[in-house]
Amino acid sequence: MSVTLYQVSVPVFIRGFDNLSAILEKGRRFATESGLDEKDLLEARLFPDMGNLIAQIQRASDTAKFAAVRVGQVESVSMEDDETSLDDLQARIAKTVAFLKSVPETSMDGRDDAMVELKTRDSVRHFTARDYVLGFAVPNFYFHATTAYALLRHKGVPIGKLDFLGRP
Amino acid sequence: MSVTLYQVSVPVFIRGFDNLSAILEKGRRFATESGLDEKDLLEARLFPDMGNLIAQIQRASDTAKFAAVRVGQVESVSMEDDETSLDDLQARIAKTVAFLKSVPETSMDGRDDAMVELKTRDSVRHFTARDYVLGFAVPNFYFHATTAYALLRHKGVPIGKLDFLGRP
Repeated sequence: MSVTLYQVSVPVFIRGFDNLSAILEKGRRFATESGLDEKDLLEARLFPDMGNLIAQIQRASDTAKFAAVRVGQVESVSMEDDETSLDDLQARIAKTVAFLKSVPETSMDGRDDAMVELKTRDSVRHFTARDYVLGFAVPNFYFHATTAYALLRHKGVPIGKLDFLGRP
Repeated sequence: MSVTLYQVSVPVFIRGFDNLSAILEKGRRFATESGLDEKDLLEARLFPDMGNLIAQIQRASDTAKFAAVRVGQVESVSMEDDETSLDDLQARIAKTVAFLKSVPETSMDGRDDAMVELKTRDSVRHFTARDYVLGFAVPNFYFHATTAYALLRHKGVPIGKLDFLGRP
């Protein structure tokens, strides 16, 4: 017995986005109640050259989407990276989750050792699908999801780790 | 074909700690070069009631260790949570990695549907080992590893996402 590449990625991302969506709503409520401008949350950074809250959600979305595309070989959906509000971020999350839910559970079967190509700014890397999912896609997703959480926490939004983990 | 619970946890944690160790060394170098007190890194927080850098490493260590203990049913090792320096944190990481490397790859075989009990401050939760690893241990590990990274980034340590992801 064991788990499939699908099980360690797609449903994990869906739950992560459900939790992120709830966290963003707590951010919205906090902003409303404390008189904080929504823009202060959206443009929050921990250091000047870092991606803001909008970028963190966009990168989490891309990571999840491309894992399904590269490993499951399903057709991609276009996302414009034009979000400018919490409503936009919620719509981005909803679109990503709808896409992930459309990925057939069998699409990744037998793909563990298939080669995946990943182009970054300055290199092309090749992984087996297994190494790509476990060593890149999943950690990269959690990296951006946790950073989104950390940005809201830094701004004072009353959230705790159980909001991040949710209830599996 | 698929992956085992061992593959999605123990080697993932080991690589995560290797990356954290390298990130902490970049923090040490930055502190030395910029005249920052090491304590400023160790006690960094994003919000007053949040765990500091020391706590993030301790919790990442506990999460990885207890996943091996609960799922692999190996004997635990005691860790005192008495770290007060970067050297101590590196020793904690080294001890955790040595423990993880001692976990037999077969220890989690056939344990996917075994029940795991998790006691938190105010509740007792029961998971299958599969749900526990994918829905709690792995996200909780990345949560604390990313937060450790974020704290150093917040303090100005010149690190980037590739330091966090490493080279799988």
